[in-house]
Amino acid sequence: MDLAGKEQAISPDMAGDDHDSIRAIQWLENRLCLLDQRCLPFEERYQYPADAAAAAGAIRDMVVRGAPAIGIAAAYAVVLAARGRYAQSPHGWRGLLAEDIRVLAAARPTAVNLSWALRRMERRSATIAGDPVGELLEEARRIHTEDLAANRRMGEHGAGLIRAGDSVLTHCNTGSLATGGYGTALGVIRSAWRAGKLNRVFAGETRPWLQGARLTAWELTRDRIPVTLITDNAAAYLMQTQQVQWVIVGADRVTANGDVINKIGTYNLAINCRHHGVGFMVVAPCSTLDFTLDDGQAVEIEQRAADEVLNLAGRRIAADGATAWNPAFDITPSRLVDYLVTENGVIQAPDTQQLATLKPPSL
Amino acid sequence: MDLAGKEQAISPDMAGDDHDSIRAIQWLENRLCLLDQRCLPFEERYQYPADAAAAAGAIRDMVVRGAPAIGIAAAYAVVLAARGRYAQSPHGWRGLLAEDIRVLAAARPTAVNLSWALRRMERRSATIAGDPVGELLEEARRIHTEDLAANRRMGEHGAGLIRAGDSVLTHCNTGSLATGGYGTALGVIRSAWRAGKLNRVFAGETRPWLQGARLTAWELTRDRIPVTLITDNAAAYLMQTQQVQWVIVGADRVTANGDVINKIGTYNLAINCRHHGVGFMVVAPCSTLDFTLDDGQAVEIEQRAADEVLNLAGRRIAADGATAWNPAFDITPSRLVDYLVTENGVIQAPDTQQLATLKPPSL
Repeated sequence: MDLAGKEQAISPDMAGDDHDSIRAIQWLENRLCLLDQRCLPFEERYQYPADAAAAAGAIRDMVVRGAPAIGIAAAYAVVLAARGRYAQSPHGWRGLLAEDIRVLAAARPTAVNLSWALRRMERRSATIAGDPVGELLEEARRIHTEDLAANRRMGEHGAGLIRAGDSVLTHCNTGSLATGGYGTALGVIRSAWRAGKLNRVFAGETRPWLQGARLTAWELTRDRIPVTLITDNAAAYLMQTQQVQWVIVGADRVTANGDVINKIGTYNLAINCRHHGVGFMVVAPCSTLDFTLDDGQAVEIEQRAADEVLNLAGRRIAADGATAWNPAFDITPSRLVDYLVTENGVIQAPDTQQLATLKPPSL
Repeated sequence: MDLAGKEQAISPDMAGDDHDSIRAIQWLENRLCLLDQRCLPFEERYQYPADAAAAAGAIRDMVVRGAPAIGIAAAYAVVLAARGRYAQSPHGWRGLLAEDIRVLAAARPTAVNLSWALRRMERRSATIAGDPVGELLEEARRIHTEDLAANRRMGEHGAGLIRAGDSVLTHCNTGSLATGGYGTALGVIRSAWRAGKLNRVFAGETRPWLQGARLTAWELTRDRIPVTLITDNAAAYLMQTQQVQWVIVGADRVTANGDVINKIGTYNLAINCRHHGVGFMVVAPCSTLDFTLDDGQAVEIEQRAADEVLNLAGRRIAADGATAWNPAFDITPSRLVDYLVTENGVIQAPDTQQLATLKPPSL
């Protein structure tokens, strides 16, 4: 598929008008600008982290979230950090920057894109003589642009699997807000919608953080794609009543055997898809692949605060005295995955052998 | 099992101290007193519906909810209604009361206990000469007491299936708040806890109405049974990590073949139990059995307002422009049910033939 012409039109600063108008991460006037996703859908507030520690805080506190978006934000944060460190020590900046990169890498443990982007920025920085800002900014922009281009390509690949008239359910937010733009699973939905193939788009609300209700519904509505929310509880009954033919999700990490680590609830949907014969499609750029881990059981699953479950939008919902177990992600074994869609191609029923054929992400 | 001794101690007005202190429905000073479950866990507010229309409103608006509790509340509402109608027309009260009963029956469509209790009250009223209040109150109290006794018996039956050290997950609220007292699935958990068998009790928060977070957590905490909440999304991962051996739920209706109509998300849990080899136990009194319907597909599934999904506790959570699909219940086919526990015995792998052996509820 020749997308060279389309790719020339892709810029992280310029959203298209084809159901793709949102950018969560921008480099504006020499600053990193993050759309604060904790305030959506009610308020569009922006944050401008000044250094690596502030950017790490923004990642940890979910100002920016979504595996590819975290990687891109961290790449720009390295530019901020390098600017400060070079001003502080024109000769010793690289050692100081390495410390900043460690701080960024520790912000969230599960998504592999974060460490992938940081590794790429660190390698780039190793070869720079003099002021590193220009070259590192160029590298961060490249990571951003490549992500956007990958999303467009995944959108086309994934939409190619969908039959006209199909309806889809998605989980969490995997759109422009979670990536450099366009989205992974939501990019497939954008492409399929633009192609006129989709009957209905359902979004699971995705407790506890309500990425579906707050972010996906906001993003799709804004880009003129009608969306129907369901509680996460209703997914199995939605399938039983034959209202969807696909569940389409993103991934925070895909291990060498094709196991998928993604937002809590994904595994539940995969089991339900298999039970009902509904297609289960995972859409993830190659930067999400982790060939260093044999399978998903080796991945550290982030446990988040019980308060995310016990409260909602800052308001207590649970009885006093209750505790909560709040894993942020779960592990879907590859045998439940029907299709893994990457920018480098589609794999049906992924396994170690097939995954190895995917071009590893450039470093 | 001889529970006669225990049953003598059971009264709807008197909660025991064995992890069972809550009563959601009481007949107090000639009034029906309902604990307003919409205000829990933050406030214990009571409502006193004055007539059938007000009681129907309380059922529709979920002041009182839970299949057995709805039936009991409606039975007492018939007493209220009969008092008014007899005062209005000592000779024509029965015809007027029939109209009230129709209003009550229409309050919510899915739970069969409502129509079962109303039918029983109507039959009782047919044989009364003179002022019907005393005899109808006696009948309503009997329905209430029988429910409580049935719950105690189900508690013993269900707890007998649980091995020492097991952990359980429950869904929605099936406790004292949902019944005449003690509960169905939560009654089994109470009995197993009292017997020292349970390692941990998990409760799914149960979106959209959060019965798990608001009601079950309140009820268990208050009755000194520690509870850990999870989002409904986390159930599959809880099973994958082998943290529970049972999912125990109630039912709003069980059809002749053993299909279970229960709170949305139940079907999802049943599929996940089967996938993981976790036991799936349904606990329901015989008043929940509906031998008039061959299977679950014939049951009317209540669709509730989209606002329950789009808002939470009166506060908007979803993006403007989003719509929602909000079925209140789902249908679990009997082949996914490992045990159906009733007051008249336990059925393993329920089917039409086995269900027929259960004594039909007295009328």
